[in-house]
Parts: sequence; structure tokens; C-alpha cells
Amino acid sequence: MNPPSSLEELVQALRCLPGVGPKAAQRMTLHLLQHDPAGGTRLAEALKKALSNIRHCEQCNTFTESALCALCASGKRDPALLCVVETPADLLMIEQTQAYSGLYFVLMGRLSPLDGVGPKDIHVERLLRRAGDGVVREVVLATNFTVEGEATAHHLGELLRARGLAVSRLARGVPVGGELEYVDSGTLAQALRDRRVV
Amino acid sequence: MNPPSSLEELVQALRCLPGVGPKAAQRMTLHLLQHDPAGGTRLAEALKKALSNIRHCEQCNTFTESALCALCASGKRDPALLCVVETPADLLMIEQTQAYSGLYFVLMGRLSPLDGVGPKDIHVERLLRRAGDGVVREVVLATNFTVEGEATAHHLGELLRARGLAVSRLARGVPVGGELEYVDSGTLAQALRDRRVV
Repeated sequence: MNPPSSLEELVQALRCLPGVGPKAAQRMTLHLLQHDPAGGTRLAEALKKALSNIRHCEQCNTFTESALCALCASGKRDPALLCVVETPADLLMIEQTQAYSGLYFVLMGRLSPLDGVGPKDIHVERLLRRAGDGVVREVVLATNFTVEGEATAHHLGELLRARGLAVSRLARGVPVGGELEYVDSGTLAQALRDRRVV
Repeated sequence: MNPPSSLEELVQALRCLPGVGPKAAQRMTLHLLQHDPAGGTRLAEALKKALSNIRHCEQCNTFTESALCALCASGKRDPALLCVVETPADLLMIEQTQAYSGLYFVLMGRLSPLDGVGPKDIHVERLLRRAGDGVVREVVLATNFTVEGEATAHHLGELLRARGLAVSRLARGVPVGGELEYVDSGTLAQALRDRRVV
């Protein structure tokens, strides 16, 4: 027997969520219909609202509902510091540390020639204009420490340095609370190379 | 910084899905906004459509878009056999086996006094009327083999037998392809007790 078509459509539609396979999608569908139709209605409305209201900040490219995001509009941040991240999620992670007082630029991706993601897709020209506004003095490259994130940081670093900007990269090393015995050797080698005078 | 409110609302709304925590909800939200807005729109529409179109089959209580579900309306199934399951997902699992030719009754739950789920919530009266239609001869109890599923089967079994119906329960035993060494002892004990003459 085939399940009713609008049920099957909902199962299929839920598959667009990352990490949701056929089994989880079916479980979600039956849960919503059986136990939480109000939650389902709320979800449908939240989806519509977010998809129509949210756009990119004109200055830093993160998600926002206004022309400028709350951070860029705040005026309380150090405009001489610009932190470059891959995604809005990375921005939120750095904000959670409360250890950074500057502004951001969100690439919305990383260089990945194999997937056809080039400099244009990650808004490199826009970043160079933004960093060259005469106020920004240091650019902190906070892309991921993956192969693609490192390549992106290298590429951006070259371009930014050529424009006379100070460029830095997040420190690599042993995680806080980490035990040497359980740290991978690549990280440990990096921590040795980047050792600090105390 | 707080993320824009309609983004935060979407993250919260996604939490109504089973198995989705705050981190997964954020990842889903950013994924939809960044990579799959079309999928998000489709999901919102599928939710609305399913929530407004889907109701319970008048005969077997499963989800359907018509008065009778496709199975109950087909006329090709053996009306003397009635299989009682907890959820529409269980019904689909049994249909997938292609080993059952009768009809179903879906409880939409299981007896669970601690959670306040009593006989009324699982439509016991309706099941007894359905099974007592004079055509049904055997009721196959296919609730889960959990404590609550077993209690539900026991309770229903008593009531149905008292009405002169033949009542059976799914067989318990070693799974197909299972090795005795790795089967839990409760299952193995049951398989011994229910051993069959070959």
C-alpha cells in the first residue's frame, strides 16, 4: 500500500533538511501529524517568514532582516579589526566566546575548485573593498582548519597583504583541557612549531 | 549578538521535530537559507497541505486523505483477518513484508497509565466494534514487544477472546540471520519455549 500522497510529499520535503534520511523523515512526519500538528503549523509559518524576510547584511554579508546586521549597526565594535569566517554559524560561535570585539565578513562558503566554488562565489572582491575602506587595519582569517578552509585563508591572505593590511590567522594547537596523549600528531606538531615564550 | 528574530524563530520551530536539538536546528536553518531556499518553501507547503488534508480512516484509523484509506477501500484484502498495530509506521512495515493479506486497525498509541494513556486514547471501543462486525474471525495483535506494547496486547486479547474471536500474537524468537551467540537471553528463552515441530 502507498501512504496518502500529501503524507508522502511531506516525507520527501523533509529530506531537504541536512542529516534527515528516509526513516527519520517518516518518523518526523508521523510525529507531527499524530502528536504536534500545532508545531507543524508553526514550523510552516516560521519557514515562510524566514525565507521571505532574511537577506544578507550589506556590509558583512551575514544573515539579517535589515540592510545592516545588528553587529555592523551597533557602533560599539572596533572597526579596525575584521574577522573573516566561512558561515554565519562560525560568526555565532566566535561571538559566544566574547573574546572578539571587532567586525566580521562572512564568505558564505570556502574556495573549493572541485565543487566549482571560485573567488566570485565567496565574494572576494567585496571583501577586498570592505577591508580596503581605510579604517580596517587587521584582518583575522578564521576559516576552518580543513584543506579547503586553509586554502581559502592562504589565498585571501596573499591578496590582503598585497594591499598593505596586517593579516592574522587563528592559533592552532592543543585544545583547552586537552591531553597530549590523545591529541593527533598533526596538531601536536603544529603546537610545537608555534610554541610561545612564557 | 542575537541572530535576526525570524531566523531564531525558525531554529525554535524546527525543535518540534523529533531528534532535533538546538545545534541541529541551527544547522538546518542555515542550510535552508544558504543552500536550499526552494526546499524550504516546498517544505512549508508540504506541511500545510499534509496538516490540512490528512485525517484518520473511518474504518482502520490510519492516516488517509479520504474517508477510507486505500487498503480498507481496496476490496482485495481478506476481511476475516484484522491486524492491530500501534502506529501507521508499523502498518507500513508489515505491508513491506508482503506476508499479510488482511486488514488493519491502528491504535495510534499504546496503553501507558504513567503517561495518562488509557483505553479511550487508543480507541479500544472502536476496535471492539470493528472486530465484532461478524466478518472478522481472527485478530492478530502486532503491538510492539515492549512492556507497554505487551500490556496493550494482553488487555486487548482478553477483551477480544471474551467476544469469541480468535486472537493471535506475532511470533517471538531468533531474528532471521541471527546467531544464537549474540541473541539476548530473554529472546532465546522465548524461542525455546515456542519451539516448533519440524
